[in-house]
Amino acid sequence: MPVATLDLTASSIDITRAICDVESVSGNEGGLADAIEAVLTPLHHLEVARDGDAIVARTRLGRDRRVVIAGHIDTVPLNANLPTQTRTEADAEVLWGRGTVDMKGGCAVQLKLAHDLVDPTVDVTWVWYDHEEVSDALNGLGRLARTRPELLAGDFAILGEPSNAQIEGGCNGNLRAEVRAYGQRSHSARSWIGDNAIHKIAGALDRLAAYEPRTVEVDGLEYREGLNAVGITGGIAGNVIPDEVMLHVNYRFAPSRSADEAVAHVTELFDGYDVTIVDLAAGARPGLDAPLAQEFVAAVGGAAPKPKYGWTDVARFSALGVPAVNYGPGDPALAHHDEERVPVAQITAVEEGLRRWLTA
Amino acid sequence: MPVATLDLTASSIDITRAICDVESVSGNEGGLADAIEAVLTPLHHLEVARDGDAIVARTRLGRDRRVVIAGHIDTVPLNANLPTQTRTEADAEVLWGRGTVDMKGGCAVQLKLAHDLVDPTVDVTWVWYDHEEVSDALNGLGRLARTRPELLAGDFAILGEPSNAQIEGGCNGNLRAEVRAYGQRSHSARSWIGDNAIHKIAGALDRLAAYEPRTVEVDGLEYREGLNAVGITGGIAGNVIPDEVMLHVNYRFAPSRSADEAVAHVTELFDGYDVTIVDLAAGARPGLDAPLAQEFVAAVGGAAPKPKYGWTDVARFSALGVPAVNYGPGDPALAHHDEERVPVAQITAVEEGLRRWLTA
Repeated sequence: MPVATLDLTASSIDITRAICDVESVSGNEGGLADAIEAVLTPLHHLEVARDGDAIVARTRLGRDRRVVIAGHIDTVPLNANLPTQTRTEADAEVLWGRGTVDMKGGCAVQLKLAHDLVDPTVDVTWVWYDHEEVSDALNGLGRLARTRPELLAGDFAILGEPSNAQIEGGCNGNLRAEVRAYGQRSHSARSWIGDNAIHKIAGALDRLAAYEPRTVEVDGLEYREGLNAVGITGGIAGNVIPDEVMLHVNYRFAPSRSADEAVAHVTELFDGYDVTIVDLAAGARPGLDAPLAQEFVAAVGGAAPKPKYGWTDVARFSALGVPAVNYGPGDPALAHHDEERVPVAQITAVEEGLRRWLTA
Repeated sequence: MPVATLDLTASSIDITRAICDVESVSGNEGGLADAIEAVLTPLHHLEVARDGDAIVARTRLGRDRRVVIAGHIDTVPLNANLPTQTRTEADAEVLWGRGTVDMKGGCAVQLKLAHDLVDPTVDVTWVWYDHEEVSDALNGLGRLARTRPELLAGDFAILGEPSNAQIEGGCNGNLRAEVRAYGQRSHSARSWIGDNAIHKIAGALDRLAAYEPRTVEVDGLEYREGLNAVGITGGIAGNVIPDEVMLHVNYRFAPSRSADEAVAHVTELFDGYDVTIVDLAAGARPGLDAPLAQEFVAAVGGAAPKPKYGWTDVARFSALGVPAVNYGPGDPALAHHDEERVPVAQITAVEEGLRRWLTA
């Protein structure tokens, strides 16, 4: 396959369209990574490194502060929604297709600015990475953090995940646990010989149903928590008293609570049950108290920053000690959606917001 | 395959062993049915009919009362537990192997007595039938009841299901229901947008956990009921608020309660939930108030009759208006067991009990 040619003198809208039309479902990012590497390497103001299908391009201007601006180039699988289409809806131009929201609009803005900003007021590290939509172990940003953390060093980071072109700070943490009760099997015609595990899980469900999730203010943003059953399974056959039941619980916790504190909270709540933590990721504080962040918020203007509820890779920056926010075009509710689409005005708005800040 | 030859002058223990060694897992009863038909047809005191792999042999003595004595000739699949073996345990002779309990011991006694009793005090209809261990639709006794009910006519019926050589009257009814709650899906990072169906089933589980099952006296026997969750399932993924949960409930109800009454009870108990009845079989009253039954109990002697908790084919006789009890060798707890085995003394005891009654 010849390497696709990208024209970074085009508008960020056209670049969005061009890179959406280079299909890059997770695991198949190579072609798009090749195109990005090919178009950036000749630019004298950038030092380009490649790691797998992740591309890192850095200015080396000797500024006293460095900002990392990152986006993933993979998408979830298509559903007959490529190539992209431009439609007009309520007098607004809207770009339809896989990746338009999550998150090639953000990647395109980053490519456009990486090309244009030869003399930004801070040093910038641009990162386009692979495998965000699949398992944590494959995540390209996680791989860089483990193996080449120096490439991600900085004073502040922006992740271009869709946030309706508004700043969304940090993210909630995420915990999943399996809560089990046990009993004794018997034939259901003589149920008094057995001990019904499913009946015993009633108390755990009562605690969930009565649970009042917190709303916690962290660095000026309000994080809404959630504690929910996301699955339940038990039973062997229609005539057998079940000896085991498993309640699958998901806890989304504010970034003021550490991962260990979240584990303690869930373990205490389900006291008397067998609790196994099966997934655990700390949240990220919004980082909006960092001076660079405050300048960024002032330069972007618009609505006040909001909290991000879903877990995103900003938490990886947070774990490296780099405050980070989400800022990108597109409605996160349309990510992965069959009708994924972005109003192109949001792409332009994000480009202008970042350009204003980086050239102020 | 040549037809196996049965010797009905042998002891009922030897006949048990012989017919266990003719493998007849459900669907494969033909060979054993052939052998039974071949050995009974020449007997002048019996009129033999065949329907599929069910054999019906009747005396035609013009007695004013007729008793139906029935057993199924199929078994559950083998688990390397044929041919049968005779072992001595605690000074007692025990016959091991598939079918020894469920229920070829009972069938052998019936064959022995069908051969021997040329002049019983009541007319007798002997029935050996197929497909008891599989789906209700295939059950040979059910087929006879639907298509040739005249073959099952009588004043009293005895089913040779294992009952430790004690009389067990009637049986509990059996109902299964699916109890559902519904909600609204959402991403679990924004759980407040959704509506958690699993949390809503907590109330139904509370009702089950708090439920006090009845013990009901019917015709002098105490029937113990049971209401249990036998399964629960809900959830789509670890990050999705579930929109549906299904609680699978099994109600075993005393034969004093009709099937309709059982449905009403369960529907009322789970008021507010979506209740679907997925299986329903009425119980059978013990029938011990019938004069023939009282004579039978007196003739057999031994322990007082007990209730049968599990649903058995006595309910099919009950539905035809024929009172029926269970009476056969073997411990029902060992039915279908890999270590299925019967103390041979129970086979002899059942033979003697029936012989005493039918010749009194």
